[in-house]
Amino acid sequence: MTITKSEIRPGAYFDSVLLMLLQRGLSELPGVEDAGVVMATPANLALLDESNLLTKDGEAGKPDDLLIVVRAKDEKSATEALAEFDSLIKKRKSNVASDFYPKSLVMANKQLPEANWVLISVPGRYAAEVADQALDIGKNVFLYSDNVSIEEEIDLKSKAQKLGLLVMGPDCGTAIINGIGLGFANHVQKGSIGVVGASGTGIQAVTSHVSNLGAGISQAIGTGGRDLKSEIMGITVLQGLEILRQDMDTKVIVLVSKPPAPEIATKILSAAQAIDKPVVINFIGHPSASQKIDNLYFVSSLEEAAEKAVSLTKNNDSQKVREKITLPKPTGYLRGLFSGGTLAYEALLSLQSFLSPIYSNVAISKDQNLEDPLESKDHTIIDLGEDVFTVGRLHPMMDNDLRLRRMKKEVEDPEVGVILLDVVLGEGSHPNPAKEISAAILETKILRPELVFVVLVIGTENDPQDKENQIKELEKTGAFVFTSSNNTIEFLNQMYQESNDKISPSIKIEDFLAPFVAINIGLESFYHSIVSQEAKAIHVEWRPPAGGNEKLMSILDKMRN
Amino acid sequence: MTITKSEIRPGAYFDSVLLMLLQRGLSELPGVEDAGVVMATPANLALLDESNLLTKDGEAGKPDDLLIVVRAKDEKSATEALAEFDSLIKKRKSNVASDFYPKSLVMANKQLPEANWVLISVPGRYAAEVADQALDIGKNVFLYSDNVSIEEEIDLKSKAQKLGLLVMGPDCGTAIINGIGLGFANHVQKGSIGVVGASGTGIQAVTSHVSNLGAGISQAIGTGGRDLKSEIMGITVLQGLEILRQDMDTKVIVLVSKPPAPEIATKILSAAQAIDKPVVINFIGHPSASQKIDNLYFVSSLEEAAEKAVSLTKNNDSQKVREKITLPKPTGYLRGLFSGGTLAYEALLSLQSFLSPIYSNVAISKDQNLEDPLESKDHTIIDLGEDVFTVGRLHPMMDNDLRLRRMKKEVEDPEVGVILLDVVLGEGSHPNPAKEISAAILETKILRPELVFVVLVIGTENDPQDKENQIKELEKTGAFVFTSSNNTIEFLNQMYQESNDKISPSIKIEDFLAPFVAINIGLESFYHSIVSQEAKAIHVEWRPPAGGNEKLMSILDKMRN
Repeated sequence: MTITKSEIRPGAYFDSVLLMLLQRGLSELPGVEDAGVVMATPANLALLDESNLLTKDGEAGKPDDLLIVVRAKDEKSATEALAEFDSLIKKRKSNVASDFYPKSLVMANKQLPEANWVLISVPGRYAAEVADQALDIGKNVFLYSDNVSIEEEIDLKSKAQKLGLLVMGPDCGTAIINGIGLGFANHVQKGSIGVVGASGTGIQAVTSHVSNLGAGISQAIGTGGRDLKSEIMGITVLQGLEILRQDMDTKVIVLVSKPPAPEIATKILSAAQAIDKPVVINFIGHPSASQKIDNLYFVSSLEEAAEKAVSLTKNNDSQKVREKITLPKPTGYLRGLFSGGTLAYEALLSLQSFLSPIYSNVAISKDQNLEDPLESKDHTIIDLGEDVFTVGRLHPMMDNDLRLRRMKKEVEDPEVGVILLDVVLGEGSHPNPAKEISAAILETKILRPELVFVVLVIGTENDPQDKENQIKELEKTGAFVFTSSNNTIEFLNQMYQESNDKISPSIKIEDFLAPFVAINIGLESFYHSIVSQEAKAIHVEWRPPAGGNEKLMSILDKMRN
Repeated sequence: MTITKSEIRPGAYFDSVLLMLLQRGLSELPGVEDAGVVMATPANLALLDESNLLTKDGEAGKPDDLLIVVRAKDEKSATEALAEFDSLIKKRKSNVASDFYPKSLVMANKQLPEANWVLISVPGRYAAEVADQALDIGKNVFLYSDNVSIEEEIDLKSKAQKLGLLVMGPDCGTAIINGIGLGFANHVQKGSIGVVGASGTGIQAVTSHVSNLGAGISQAIGTGGRDLKSEIMGITVLQGLEILRQDMDTKVIVLVSKPPAPEIATKILSAAQAIDKPVVINFIGHPSASQKIDNLYFVSSLEEAAEKAVSLTKNNDSQKVREKITLPKPTGYLRGLFSGGTLAYEALLSLQSFLSPIYSNVAISKDQNLEDPLESKDHTIIDLGEDVFTVGRLHPMMDNDLRLRRMKKEVEDPEVGVILLDVVLGEGSHPNPAKEISAAILETKILRPELVFVVLVIGTENDPQDKENQIKELEKTGAFVFTSSNNTIEFLNQMYQESNDKISPSIKIEDFLAPFVAINIGLESFYHSIVSQEAKAIHVEWRPPAGGNEKLMSILDKMRN
């Protein structure tokens, strides 16, 4: 009869490679059918249960406890296997000639003072402290460890930024620095495409595809998946962009991330736009209505990101210094007053990446929702064809009265700097919208000569209103008139961009120009991987304080203070 | 001193053109500064207030009441202006030689029995009944009116579908049928691009741009903005696609809409894929990770939709009958077990358009969220590198144990038909993942030989694992192995597509081949617009039952029953 036996070792620490090896070792013992050697977290207990490895004793385990389980063909085999556990540990450890490794970061730094990087892959609850020590001795950090709190991440990144250092991570799976792959990284060709990624496999997929297409990678900078959340404010992404901006070998930049918080997207895109290199952006799953704005190229998949970047390296135009036309300076918020619902929606979609917050009665996300459609707020886009406005009233494409009254109201708001309008021509629409709208625009000029008017005209040459003349009439007022949504958005973006401050976060670029030298703390396999790539490195034989025993640790902590 | 005076007329009906003209008429009277003639809805009262046109009396108005307001320089001018209101009505009405118009739909139909369309733009609360009458006499309906309830829309569209008729709308602003523009429509060239749009200005922007690019439109079918909501289930979009499928003049189809409900997207895309013509899709603001799947082309802006459609008309390849390779038939749900978080996220993003519902621990929308990441449900995508799985355990890229245990569990679920895996090669990863994974796949073949395995391999030729050999080892098990996400998704989609039923909604195609002949009820300007385009039409001089008096209407209703 099959029997399952377990043992709990409170507060015992082993690294995860050793845990895997021990589990395999137990499984291979005579009479043993299956084994588990895990930290007794709720998730791990549930997983054991699925493999029929959960015992009553095991259920009582706490997250800090090591839980050892074997399922064997009989009582005897199970007992013997458990008894074998400690000798398995000894055997595994004697296999590793680890005696020559330094035991702490400080010692490692004495042996290899030229190290400019520390790779950290210790368990999450110890990781922040180790990273903090690395910053203290002036090193950049690759923080592979996950299960690090967001508060710790904020503290580490803020500190790093002040020091001009980089913290990639936590939960940073991948980076390529000066040709050396850190963590999980593919062997890719050296080249002129630099990557910043808040996504490990995102970087792997893009860099592999670039290399498979015959092009190469200059640097690939990982940031950890939370960097573009509003708590972190994209510190590492911004630093990464700054590195690639300064790095002469980088000709084209790729930025990959899950969709950022809207206010962060604005900040990141603004920084990317200030770079005099093409930047390919894949905010995976983030809806976009523009394919290209200025030097920014928006793509919707990892493969497309790689393909676009490779094609841009072959395009000399992209290296040219961009023309800067003289643009009016907006003195306040944008107010978009639309007669076309879909045009309003598409404008909102495109503008939300650059202007934030932006409110609307056709909001895309709930937090953009304009409480009262009659009252604009900050940047606002209004669809005046919505049901609420059309009870007993002609559609705004037929009758300009409502829109012109609203425009008057917006103009009286001193916080407003730009008015955006659409004029949709064709059958059924007002016979001469430009006439009424132009007159209204000219009237505002008396009160607010500095106001900027931007008008999107949709129609064909054969439309009854005479498109050419409509455009001329509108242009006479000084309004900027476009017949393409993309051009309208690009114009608005450049206009607001001009008045943004340039963001140049502090970063020591020398570390990226110097050869890569690393101290590795945690998974030994990462050390071997670095050395196999012919970079200089040293491994730290790290043990948690007090052997991982939480009670002892807190006593030690108290004694220190 | 300025004085504002108002008058309320309970339950009075005037069409919105007349209201606009009356308001202008009042404004132009001597001593009058501004005037308002509106139905007294809360929104309209608020709008009056903003123009300093709201009085105490006015505030007491009810949504069915007509409210007349004037602001004048003195008491006398205000009183005189209000007194002038009725003579203004008489003057306006005598301007219109409307006596020869029929007074009802039935009468109009006797005069023009060959009419195949009824255009309805009466106020929302009367619109559903008029549309219902139009269906009863076998006409297709263009329903411009807004403020129609969703329940009424369901009833109308369900009835129309049974009769093989089309209801475009409610709130359908735009359509082009056999070259005749309905509602708001641009004068565009005739051509081979057919459009279905749940968006009026969306259709206008796309058709104008197509025409400006030198190509042309066969048909543009509006559906109303709610057609792709889960209540309506895309009835009109599906009928529209079926019309364009059958229409010999249509070579390329464009579908434009705000993002549909996920289950509707699946249905619509499935129907679009069954059409032997290229279909360009712009679900405005809907994130997509694929640019092309089979005959479907995904674009992210209205301009891009037009440009892609035009380029497809010039591409003869797109007319070729698509090759159908022999695909395995999936016998159940897809379970994706990923080691790469971003690969999982991108796969979910691409698959959610075709497989629905689909659950995940890296869900994009809340309703996709997998309650317990240890328990799959329907179609499921799991990222096994998430924090919860990695406490004290190596990442699944290094250690396959957790993933292979999970795979075993999925295989034991008889509802599962397809297993999707990623294998990410490179430094830091497992030295030979294919070996362990292949062995596990072969083991499942004993129990479930019909299971389909699909594997996405990410890496380069220079990676330490030997990519070629990894692929060969996986292929030996009978697994379908891809090195491109796009190809993986396309394969999965085609495999599941094969087992879907084709949707062919009932529709009378004759009405679209016959010349356009219409009965117009509501805005007279739409009638003139149709006639100016040299199509046959008749206008109905429609009045609401009981002159719009709600009380009288309900008494009449009771007497009839």
